[in-house]
Amino acid sequence: MKLKINGEEVDLPAVWWNSEQKLVQLIDQTKLPFQISIHSCSTYRDIVEAIKSMKIRGAPSIGATAAYGLAQAINEFWGEPEYLTKVSLAYDQLLLSRPTAVDLKNGLDHVKKTWVVSPDEAIVQAQKFAHNISMQGKKIGEVGKSLIRESMNILTHCHTGALALVDHGSAIAPLIASWEDGMRFHVYVDETRPRMQGRLTSWELTQYGIDHTVICDSASGHLMSSGKVDLIILGADRVAKNGDIANKIGTHNLAVIANHYSIPFYSAFPDTTFDINTSTGAEITIEERNPQEIYEVRGLSKTKRTRISVSVYKENTHFYNPAFDVTPAELLSGYITPHGILSKEDLGQVYSN
Amino acid sequence: MKLKINGEEVDLPAVWWNSEQKLVQLIDQTKLPFQISIHSCSTYRDIVEAIKSMKIRGAPSIGATAAYGLAQAINEFWGEPEYLTKVSLAYDQLLLSRPTAVDLKNGLDHVKKTWVVSPDEAIVQAQKFAHNISMQGKKIGEVGKSLIRESMNILTHCHTGALALVDHGSAIAPLIASWEDGMRFHVYVDETRPRMQGRLTSWELTQYGIDHTVICDSASGHLMSSGKVDLIILGADRVAKNGDIANKIGTHNLAVIANHYSIPFYSAFPDTTFDINTSTGAEITIEERNPQEIYEVRGLSKTKRTRISVSVYKENTHFYNPAFDVTPAELLSGYITPHGILSKEDLGQVYSN
Repeated sequence: MKLKINGEEVDLPAVWWNSEQKLVQLIDQTKLPFQISIHSCSTYRDIVEAIKSMKIRGAPSIGATAAYGLAQAINEFWGEPEYLTKVSLAYDQLLLSRPTAVDLKNGLDHVKKTWVVSPDEAIVQAQKFAHNISMQGKKIGEVGKSLIRESMNILTHCHTGALALVDHGSAIAPLIASWEDGMRFHVYVDETRPRMQGRLTSWELTQYGIDHTVICDSASGHLMSSGKVDLIILGADRVAKNGDIANKIGTHNLAVIANHYSIPFYSAFPDTTFDINTSTGAEITIEERNPQEIYEVRGLSKTKRTRISVSVYKENTHFYNPAFDVTPAELLSGYITPHGILSKEDLGQVYSN
Repeated sequence: MKLKINGEEVDLPAVWWNSEQKLVQLIDQTKLPFQISIHSCSTYRDIVEAIKSMKIRGAPSIGATAAYGLAQAINEFWGEPEYLTKVSLAYDQLLLSRPTAVDLKNGLDHVKKTWVVSPDEAIVQAQKFAHNISMQGKKIGEVGKSLIRESMNILTHCHTGALALVDHGSAIAPLIASWEDGMRFHVYVDETRPRMQGRLTSWELTQYGIDHTVICDSASGHLMSSGKVDLIILGADRVAKNGDIANKIGTHNLAVIANHYSIPFYSAFPDTTFDINTSTGAEITIEERNPQEIYEVRGLSKTKRTRISVSVYKENTHFYNPAFDVTPAELLSGYITPHGILSKEDLGQVYSN
């Protein structure tokens, strides 16, 4: 991802291994979009803390970070008495650092194979795991470019950029790839209450100079009905075998409205998001998150410019805070994957092989 | 509206004439939902300030408040030299206190007729104007009750309560009327970004003990697709002759999704909201409001419990902030008016007479 740090342009992923200093480093997402800050983890315990405190977010990026964490634990305990007990404990602590993400377990299991081989191999495998994720984002970008035309208005929801996918991103990747090819278009960025991930999307698009406007989630119907949206691209948190997608709350709203106004609607995701064990969206349990996410809003104080939270509701207000929703396959125009733009029929074909 | 002030239950409108103290009093909406505070205006200048600073909100309530303001000016200047110049100036200042509301002009013109009659008559006419508005709310409540069944889940958007309509409210009025009849149901309250008017709706429902839950605007698709919404009732800011409605941004989203899932969708409004001079929604200009409304969020500080604002976006972020959207008549199931529940055909009939 392109970044300007102290006026200098650098190209960094969301998380990486600093081989000189033997550190895992990551862009601290809790300080974004207000401040770019590099956070360093010298042990797997630092990694556990970084994941728990959401310094790193996005399932694929969390998976890569956990892989690096286990590699660090292997290096730390290699040759010690009770080595296997110690690395097993590290594995468990890393696994428990976030409740849901299947990517986290995938990352850990990828490195686990090396813990009887060598500490160096553990690092190599963690790097390979992270690299593969970022390459998936790069492929999605190349594949999705074909949907984008000059002067289009494109709507996106939630955050699907490099920060979430080690590099390149999922739904954002085609936008970046097209922009770098010289294509010019405009992006509407859904705010995405309650967590306002649109802030991160806006921040990432800014790094590439991509023309965009943030809107409240409820403005999408107005935009679509007045012909101001030509294409919708967003991500997925899980894709069922039949093509139903679980994604950030609000996706279902957009899909129904896009369908009503015949606006192309695509979901972009890496291989790890397709779940061969889920037949349809009806099997996906929707995670209900802490009402605090709606109740409290975090931002910069006006006077001291420090990050603070305000309570925006009266105490004892009741909230319902589903984090995701399920969008039925028939509302999607197609799926942007590293294997091409697929129909729901292709999807089962490609991923069952 | 029912209120608990210092543990004592009182019944107050949004704005009223205190005949003993010769004051216009109103519930200060800028302090809600965190604090119930009665604000007193002893001159029309105080009224101008109260409208400008949004201590009073909602077009019908603003109209009533302005009517009281002009009555105060008539009382203040009666018998003075250049009386007519002074009350004309007061009229103009009151009229300019908010840019849009046609109700404001209606309220002023209703009282203007009395300024050559007597100061007492000015007060009487202001009271009559305010009373008529609140009676419209009461009728809407009685009419709309027929739509509500035991154990229903009802979704509403924005704020349409007593605070906005002097008393009783528009879309909220049927909920209150049914609840007071002993009907039990549950209300989902849309947060309604960016101004979060759902806070006021939640606060008013709390006064009546009505069971409700606040949701982010983007959760409605999930609720509707999973069968958790039986009825949608919301207000209108302007209704065109053909039945198209302009209402708070997000209404269009709800209407399309409700239509997709065959969920009854009604708009409730007083007579003043129907605009005989607007043929269709296409003629309604959508007001674009200050991006600051998205950029800054107001709430209580966690430590000092004072009202403060935080900036939730990075500086220089571009926003698009349409305040309203237009929903085509074919997406509405009907209109809840003081004259009954009307179809779009009835609507033209009733209001052209």
